[in-house]
Amino acid sequence: MAKDTLRVIPLGGLGEIGRNMMLLEYGDDIIVIDVGLMFPEEEMLGVDLVIPDFSYLRDRKENLRGIFLTHGHEDHVGALPYFLREFNAPIYSARLTDGLIRVKLQEHRLLQEVATNVVAPGEVVEAGAFSVEFFTVAHSIPDACGLIIRTPLGPVVHTGDFKLDHTPVMDQHTDLIRLGQIGAEGCLLLMADSTYAEQEGYTPSEQLVGDALRSIIVNAQGRVIVATFASLISRVQLVVDAAVFTGRKVFVTGRSMIDNVAMARQLGYINAPDGVIIGVEEMRNTPPSRLIIITTGSQGEPTSALTRMANGDHRHVTISKGDTVVLSSSPVPGNETAVYRNVDNLFRLGADVLYNRISNIHVRGHASREELKIVQALLQPEYFVPIHGEYRHLVVHAKLAETVGVPAGNAFVLTDGDVLEIDEENAYTGERVSASYVYVDGLGIGDVDQHFLRDRAHLATDGVVVVMVSVDKQTGKLERPAEVLTRGFIDADEREDLIERCREVCEKSLAGVSHYAEFSDVNNRIRDAVSKFLYDETRRRPMVLTVTVEV
Amino acid sequence: MAKDTLRVIPLGGLGEIGRNMMLLEYGDDIIVIDVGLMFPEEEMLGVDLVIPDFSYLRDRKENLRGIFLTHGHEDHVGALPYFLREFNAPIYSARLTDGLIRVKLQEHRLLQEVATNVVAPGEVVEAGAFSVEFFTVAHSIPDACGLIIRTPLGPVVHTGDFKLDHTPVMDQHTDLIRLGQIGAEGCLLLMADSTYAEQEGYTPSEQLVGDALRSIIVNAQGRVIVATFASLISRVQLVVDAAVFTGRKVFVTGRSMIDNVAMARQLGYINAPDGVIIGVEEMRNTPPSRLIIITTGSQGEPTSALTRMANGDHRHVTISKGDTVVLSSSPVPGNETAVYRNVDNLFRLGADVLYNRISNIHVRGHASREELKIVQALLQPEYFVPIHGEYRHLVVHAKLAETVGVPAGNAFVLTDGDVLEIDEENAYTGERVSASYVYVDGLGIGDVDQHFLRDRAHLATDGVVVVMVSVDKQTGKLERPAEVLTRGFIDADEREDLIERCREVCEKSLAGVSHYAEFSDVNNRIRDAVSKFLYDETRRRPMVLTVTVEV
Repeated sequence: MAKDTLRVIPLGGLGEIGRNMMLLEYGDDIIVIDVGLMFPEEEMLGVDLVIPDFSYLRDRKENLRGIFLTHGHEDHVGALPYFLREFNAPIYSARLTDGLIRVKLQEHRLLQEVATNVVAPGEVVEAGAFSVEFFTVAHSIPDACGLIIRTPLGPVVHTGDFKLDHTPVMDQHTDLIRLGQIGAEGCLLLMADSTYAEQEGYTPSEQLVGDALRSIIVNAQGRVIVATFASLISRVQLVVDAAVFTGRKVFVTGRSMIDNVAMARQLGYINAPDGVIIGVEEMRNTPPSRLIIITTGSQGEPTSALTRMANGDHRHVTISKGDTVVLSSSPVPGNETAVYRNVDNLFRLGADVLYNRISNIHVRGHASREELKIVQALLQPEYFVPIHGEYRHLVVHAKLAETVGVPAGNAFVLTDGDVLEIDEENAYTGERVSASYVYVDGLGIGDVDQHFLRDRAHLATDGVVVVMVSVDKQTGKLERPAEVLTRGFIDADEREDLIERCREVCEKSLAGVSHYAEFSDVNNRIRDAVSKFLYDETRRRPMVLTVTVEV
Repeated sequence: MAKDTLRVIPLGGLGEIGRNMMLLEYGDDIIVIDVGLMFPEEEMLGVDLVIPDFSYLRDRKENLRGIFLTHGHEDHVGALPYFLREFNAPIYSARLTDGLIRVKLQEHRLLQEVATNVVAPGEVVEAGAFSVEFFTVAHSIPDACGLIIRTPLGPVVHTGDFKLDHTPVMDQHTDLIRLGQIGAEGCLLLMADSTYAEQEGYTPSEQLVGDALRSIIVNAQGRVIVATFASLISRVQLVVDAAVFTGRKVFVTGRSMIDNVAMARQLGYINAPDGVIIGVEEMRNTPPSRLIIITTGSQGEPTSALTRMANGDHRHVTISKGDTVVLSSSPVPGNETAVYRNVDNLFRLGADVLYNRISNIHVRGHASREELKIVQALLQPEYFVPIHGEYRHLVVHAKLAETVGVPAGNAFVLTDGDVLEIDEENAYTGERVSASYVYVDGLGIGDVDQHFLRDRAHLATDGVVVVMVSVDKQTGKLERPAEVLTRGFIDADEREDLIERCREVCEKSLAGVSHYAEFSDVNNRIRDAVSKFLYDETRRRPMVLTVTVEV
């Protein structure tokens, strides 16, 4: 590559939701923006997490000048512990983000080995050929930032996750003035959040939720239980404010909610008068009409506090008639089934349940189309790369950009592993780099591949049949009837006839073997014959595994 | 039960989406309304279909007076072939519904054994203590009907699936006058569709889609490909109308679309001038700007025509730049991933894709809240049972009914297997009847149970490990090293060390066995030791299966 070329290399988050990670490279200098994780999709059976593919950096470790984190959500910082096992560079982020990742790095015993740095909005960090300035954006977690990255070719703006919010709850708006200044200066490249690029109009302000919550709490006769994201500190503040307004006490439950509320109060991100937030003993002595419970579980997570309440097995909270449960969230795609199962179960227990489809108790944290146009209008970038989103989100965002002024052909729909090269004259896509899914499963990182997942899918569909045969060393004949074991396929006790005929099929399948053949041949013959027999009998295709012993 | 009691017994579709089936019983007379199937939910691994539980009818076969079908969708008629293996009674339905089920029964070779009867709206069928009148409703398939069921206690109205549509495309509106007449007479019980009871306002008319489709087709430079439900005949008519309007030809692809269009033209439900619908040869010779393709696959079904186009392996249609693909549908819950994967892939191939989130090209077939209120106002029923929907839909529909006049306590939220008993004085829930999920998997009906599904889920998560040991008959010692086989767990070639240590663990686990023990004891010892060892090493929990042979 030419020395005076800026290379933009997404390693995650483009063409998918989650595991956001972007590289900028100029000469021998590389900076990383975000190192996020993705929760596995439905077909990634048994996988715990998905992280970006770091291969491209493995030969360039010494070029890494800094890691810049836009905000503290898992899809932006969650893969950091895996990244830091192999790579090291100073980490820069805003105050709350720093607090959150330090907890995470401590857990992974990595805190001693890395330098984390708190950066204030407006502050500039030098990193090789780049200098990076943080600016505030409105999003569903405090201290979310975008980045202005000065490069030898001109300024690059990366929005991080953002929306516009002119009446934010925690006084954190998107810094439109700073964007206008960069626009005046001449923005080389804009990379902007595409998550809600399909959504017409404007995303409502967080203040709207405050009004709705207060009205629900004022009107509720009994206990009010509010579930939301543990990182959505502004929402917790709204609930605390409503509690103060109505003279109620607040009990907090769910591990991550307890931790986040404690941390946020300590750092000054939640303002709660003394005595409003109470412990379990005081909760027991507070009448329902004077109580609000804030809980995790708004996404239907199986072991979360709200799911335990919905299943009737929460240690401290038993749902009953008179309770009002507010799901102050909307289901993240893929979580719908779990979320609505909780809603159904809470209704069954007699609670009144308010959720996104029937009440205005959540607003999104991402910009809708009119907001995206405003950012384009302020920056008027020469080049545009839509980031954060599935392929269609990127496409509709690129089309939007072209309708509001990005020159035709200058909006690049990249996906993970694509490389955009920008020089003084021009921008073009270069040779791709590796950007596979890297699966974390238990202690294994990257050892689970498509082959495993196909096997797991096969096992999940029709179960497994194990056939064990003892073959006579001399004659190659079966020494005794085959052993047949099944799981998830048929009820072997009720279908003893089928098992018996399966044994006969094994025996017949070896009829042509006159002398001792290879194990693999014996195994193949048995597997093919048994698979065919079972399919003909049941129209199911269990995975057939064969073990042959020689006696 | 008292002789003069009406019993309302839902066997499917209440507390879930799909497999709709309702029984009405009075004295020795039973009628069945709909016998639908449900497509399996995510956790029903490997299951093909879910059908209602017919147990309650098994002791009462001779009481069955008739089977009444509201319309031809699979969730209302799909389990009929399974039902008719055990039960027989005259089947009554409107003309198109009859056409559709006759095809289905023919396939299952059941047509000779049952009497199917076409019933016109307004016609009355006598069935024991009941007399049943069909009335037209607007829905996303022609000839959809509701039922007015006269019982000795008064009239019962069952809406089937419905919406109001004052400007329907095929002249089929919901018969509000007939509902008003029953209301005037005094409606004992209303059972109404709850699918969209969460949705505020009115469901738009099908005519709206016609306007949008015509405008898209007029403006498209190249080929237009429209995907929708094969049973949504009115939508197909709209596309044909737009083709005629713009002078385009129509090519139909996808097995069920081809069959349904042929059947609908034959029965007069689609009106297409000669020469508008063309075959594959003529399509090849038609310029893209003069062509519309109608296809299946709007739900992302893996083997559908649209999915094949999106994957670049459709036999006749290769997607390229210039094509406009219209998904005239919205994803049924659970299908989102598959639908949006197709959208992404079609964008990747260069097509312009219009889908529900960015364009008004679909309307729902179910009534929203204001429409539900109108039906309540026309019928003013004494009792109300919300039908068709997950538990929360039923709850919000019952609440809605109480706000518009159903006496407090007279709206009953039932779920499958509940029994509502109504007598001259009162209504109350009686003893429940069996209403389990009955799974169809291959040729098996009802043999797959929760135990199977748990095993399949276990296999899907971390795969399987098979351990085979040969034990000496006399000593109970291992006669040779264990054989270890894995699938979906680890790469056995790369982790030969782990397999080797696993063999050692097997050997050690039997160390205390001084004489020949029970097989089951040997198996348990090995399984427990191997499971623990593998979890400690990998933090994964494969299913461990052990086979012991005695030599």
